[in-house]
Amino acid sequence: MFAVTVLGNNSALPMHDRHPTAQVLTYKEQLFLIDCGEGTQMQMNAFKIRRSRIGHIFISHLHGDHYFGLFGLLNSYGLNGRRDPLHIHAPAALEPLLKLSFDVADVNLPYALHFHAIRQGSVLLDDENLMVTAFPVTHRIECWGFLFREKPRPRKVIPEKAREAGIPQAFYPQLKAGSDYRHKEGHITLNEEVTEPGPAARSYAYCADTLYEPQKIGEVVKNCSMIYHEATYLEDQQEKAAARYHSTAAQAARIAADAGVNKLLIGHFSSRYTDLQPFLEESRSIFSATDLAIEGTTYLVGK
Amino acid sequence: MFAVTVLGNNSALPMHDRHPTAQVLTYKEQLFLIDCGEGTQMQMNAFKIRRSRIGHIFISHLHGDHYFGLFGLLNSYGLNGRRDPLHIHAPAALEPLLKLSFDVADVNLPYALHFHAIRQGSVLLDDENLMVTAFPVTHRIECWGFLFREKPRPRKVIPEKAREAGIPQAFYPQLKAGSDYRHKEGHITLNEEVTEPGPAARSYAYCADTLYEPQKIGEVVKNCSMIYHEATYLEDQQEKAAARYHSTAAQAARIAADAGVNKLLIGHFSSRYTDLQPFLEESRSIFSATDLAIEGTTYLVGK
Repeated sequence: MFAVTVLGNNSALPMHDRHPTAQVLTYKEQLFLIDCGEGTQMQMNAFKIRRSRIGHIFISHLHGDHYFGLFGLLNSYGLNGRRDPLHIHAPAALEPLLKLSFDVADVNLPYALHFHAIRQGSVLLDDENLMVTAFPVTHRIECWGFLFREKPRPRKVIPEKAREAGIPQAFYPQLKAGSDYRHKEGHITLNEEVTEPGPAARSYAYCADTLYEPQKIGEVVKNCSMIYHEATYLEDQQEKAAARYHSTAAQAARIAADAGVNKLLIGHFSSRYTDLQPFLEESRSIFSATDLAIEGTTYLVGK
Repeated sequence: MFAVTVLGNNSALPMHDRHPTAQVLTYKEQLFLIDCGEGTQMQMNAFKIRRSRIGHIFISHLHGDHYFGLFGLLNSYGLNGRRDPLHIHAPAALEPLLKLSFDVADVNLPYALHFHAIRQGSVLLDDENLMVTAFPVTHRIECWGFLFREKPRPRKVIPEKAREAGIPQAFYPQLKAGSDYRHKEGHITLNEEVTEPGPAARSYAYCADTLYEPQKIGEVVKNCSMIYHEATYLEDQQEKAAARYHSTAAQAARIAADAGVNKLLIGHFSSRYTDLQPFLEESRSIFSATDLAIEGTTYLVGK
């Protein structure tokens, strides 16, 4: 399972029962939290997120609607007796702010909190399945997008061909990993004779809050399985969007179309809009595989 | 109208669709916010609180469940273009934390934010109708209760007696304020001959998070129209309550009974309790005029 669950889809001013930004990314057994607006822990309760499985939290920037829920979440983990370490990846300036909030309350967390300041080119996570990197986007203050890229998935053994070639089953894991098989007699069966490519590696890019930057962002998200791009306004508010370092639904769609991604998720809707349907229509008229980020809904990343 | 509306009635860990502490006190046209747990601004939306009328915010202590919603509220005021000054009364350590949160986001609020550090004996507000003072309670960190005491209300003129005494109507405002009337001929009508006492002055005490301190708190809240006292636990968890500097429903009730208050509101319920009915029963068995603090409900202070 590789999927993203939306906890908050609104821009800074919570309204229309929409909440500030937060998303949970599920990759197999791991959960990742991307941004953490006020009320995120309540949204986790409402949508039954297994929050103890979150090991890494990624904060794009320090506008309050992207991190004011972090204080409460970290404290609640403490009250719940969490023991597993927790990693926070965020702009450097967040660290003293968190520290101060613990100091004034005389809080000692029962778990290890590891703070990682994001820097240009940072690899935030690199395990056997997944690599997470940060990429800079253009906003009023330092702001980062996040790219979650799955490692190449194992090749598939074609059992009848492997049997025919006389390869023992014990060697199949190595076949999946791409090895050739050397027979006792000395000759070699090439890997591609008895395997086929595994499913394509999947990727999710979270483009945070950003000015419309088709080249810069397009390059990063090229061919992604799914991207989330903010769409604070509709296209008729293009100037306001630019003045506030935000984007429109049409702009998000153009980026998705040009970068050849499979799916686009749009969110961070301005409070001025009660009805979100026009966002969907505007984006789909340019890029049909668009979904609105709806709170409590889970979207599959790739196949 | 003198009334308190509960926005959050739970202790630190939000659960059972209950929220961390916040209350709005309405006095005539003014609104006051007492504590501001995470999600307070969303609760204000849900319960249609006229938040622009809030001129003073009182924060009892710096455990997160009493102030983590403040960051978001202050920012939202800014986004909404608030111009009226806003006063925050809180432990001194909150000021640098707020400042840092504005700095990292490069926020310039469009309204004046006045921070007042609470000190022993502080008079927080003193206008023609109301005096607000802080009183220390005993918690794990510096913690303050708040006493809202109405000024003596004007006396009532008894029109037939005033007419009979030959006092012109133009003098009635002075009669209400307590003056005697000196007739042209030199003799005097004493105020109490033509007026009766106005309605009793009302008072509300918010006792914050506190250890059971019957003497210390009892003295402050003596004869109040209404007090809010925390009741984090039921009496069978008395030891746990004391260890954590909290109180039980029975303890809150004893304080109310001994201090001769008219009404008791209990809240700050631990997340371990799904059902609140036992709190009401425990408290009412000692002090019958108890109400549970229920989110979205407004309780009248006095008559």
